Amino acid sequence: MIIPMQLGEKSYEILLEPGCLSRAEALLDLDRKVLVVTDDGVPPQYAQTLAEQCREPRLLVVPQGEGSKSLAMLERLLSAMLQAGFTRRDCVCAVGGGVVGDLAGFAAACYMRGIDFYNIPTTVLSQVDSSVGGKTAVDLDGVKNAVGAFHQPRKVLIDFDTLETLTPRLRAEGLAEAVKAGLIGDAALFALFEEDAPERRLPEIIARAIEVKRRVVEADETEQGLRRILNFGHTIGHGIESVTGLPHGACVALGMLPMCGPGAEARLRGVLERLGLLTAVPADPEAVYAALLHDKKAGGGRISVVRVDEPGSCRVEEEAPEALRGLIDKVVKA
Amino acid sequence: MIIPMQLGEKSYEILLEPGCLSRAEALLDLDRKVLVVTDDGVPPQYAQTLAEQCREPRLLVVPQGEGSKSLAMLERLLSAMLQAGFTRRDCVCAVGGGVVGDLAGFAAACYMRGIDFYNIPTTVLSQVDSSVGGKTAVDLDGVKNAVGAFHQPRKVLIDFDTLETLTPRLRAEGLAEAVKAGLIGDAALFALFEEDAPERRLPEIIARAIEVKRRVVEADETEQGLRRILNFGHTIGHGIESVTGLPHGACVALGMLPMCGPGAEARLRGVLERLGLLTAVPADPEAVYAALLHDKKAGGGRISVVRVDEPGSCRVEEEAPEALRGLIDKVVKA
Repeated sequence: MIIPMQLGEKSYEILLEPGCLSRAEALLDLDRKVLVVTDDGVPPQYAQTLAEQCREPRLLVVPQGEGSKSLAMLERLLSAMLQAGFTRRDCVCAVGGGVVGDLAGFAAACYMRGIDFYNIPTTVLSQVDSSVGGKTAVDLDGVKNAVGAFHQPRKVLIDFDTLETLTPRLRAEGLAEAVKAGLIGDAALFALFEEDAPERRLPEIIARAIEVKRRVVEADETEQGLRRILNFGHTIGHGIESVTGLPHGACVALGMLPMCGPGAEARLRGVLERLGLLTAVPADPEAVYAALLHDKKAGGGRISVVRVDEPGSCRVEEEAPEALRGLIDKVVKA
Repeated sequence: MIIPMQLGEKSYEILLEPGCLSRAEALLDLDRKVLVVTDDGVPPQYAQTLAEQCREPRLLVVPQGEGSKSLAMLERLLSAMLQAGFTRRDCVCAVGGGVVGDLAGFAAACYMRGIDFYNIPTTVLSQVDSSVGGKTAVDLDGVKNAVGAFHQPRKVLIDFDTLETLTPRLRAEGLAEAVKAGLIGDAALFALFEEDAPERRLPEIIARAIEVKRRVVEADETEQGLRRILNFGHTIGHGIESVTGLPHGACVALGMLPMCGPGAEARLRGVLERLGLLTAVPADPEAVYAALLHDKKAGGGRISVVRVDEPGSCRVEEEAPEALRGLIDKVVKA
């Protein structure tokens, strides 16, 4: 299936199809120089499969993990392109998870002031989360995504077959973002997690989660307002992530719980338990609160928080940071 | 006077007015954190005058010269903003020439994926050339502007008073870009250089040159086609710049001569002589040709060149690089 992203001149398609990676040549313009970026945690056959379909591939494998989202690594990508004589008509293709997509996408955004970017996310999290929205970035001085660009891909290929090499844990953590999408904008998607083993409905879940995100991003491409609802669960979630170092999806799962009204909270708790995700974490709530404040320094005085009373719809409120202190205690226990 | 740039959501105004720097507070939103970027070749009172009008200024002085257009210097700017707690609502302001504008503009383009940028160019060259177009960049591995973004400023202030501290040579070199603007798109502007001492008509010349550039950029914001005409004189000019290290304006002046038809060439020669600019340079034409080829590696097989038969209009042609070899000999003499 194809999900069209309507963004004027920057419109593009997300193709969701098992096996599409192996026929990328027919789907993307690979008849040029292509910087293929992957990391050493991604099964190497995926990037290899893509590279074999490019006229002039230049494969670059970065170390797995957030540490690769750095200006130094960005420079490595850019230098590799200069060395190989990449022009404004050549392109970059990411094959892997969110780190690879963010890094490679930013390299494409700023090389010669912007060249084509293709994204082939190979994890549940990146298929749901980073294939829509055009956000690219690297970190600086410990601040996540401090430096980046909005740069829409030319096309996104989602090959469900690549999910088979993921561990069940990674799949579940990635699904937390799909649960989020259901909570803020698609009650039927949320219900899927209550009805069946989500493992068996991955394509449908991923497609519906992307649909939710598509609607929001189309209405607010550069995050001026509405797009903030995609941050549901992320305010407290990021605080927990900084303090515990737990994976992003697991932390977002935790961060959503206190932002739900009673009915939604009970249902969410049930879903998280079925997915094998934490519903509370042992850590210092004060430290989480401090991290949250540091994170939101960006926001000036008040913080916008997203709340869900019933799965499928949400509201944004401006609150004083102190209002969040008590909510943290619900999921972070010293 | 105000020149409005019509670029949809990214529209902005260029204000041209003697003394406007000292009333920037009334013209720009400086009631926030402002990173003021200048270089040590710019009279320090200009950046100081701006900083004094900001609620929370953070002044950063980079070394004069192209060497400051580096990823390392970019990181310095970005880190300074992080350290001072800049949010997406704060801004960057460049006070100086093209190097400062390119560097500071790119920092604004990618900090938190883009924050407001104000440009206060203080040289003839930067007032004419880099205040319109939204091009920002740094260099990498010896390639000029290899990494950057299109990021339109929120407003540009052109204070003619700042030109008084320029040497006559710098003014003349800057005027080469205004001569270019006249040749490609405004016969009356070109005629100004033949009629009078341009020194006495600087405001009018700068305003008209900006008008030419405005029309072109509005029609082609991200340099897909028409905007190439702004590169008139730059193909051979850049080759000469690489080999001789002469200033940009002087090289563009030289690069325009061979691209003119006979009538325009004679008139241009007269204008350059009156400005005290070179009409020929002692260097190795083969080296200039080699540099040009290296530069245009970016272009694939053929090179688009801009030609002027009569001042005021131009045409773009695709040519084989060899066709330029003979033209170089007209202005580069071993």
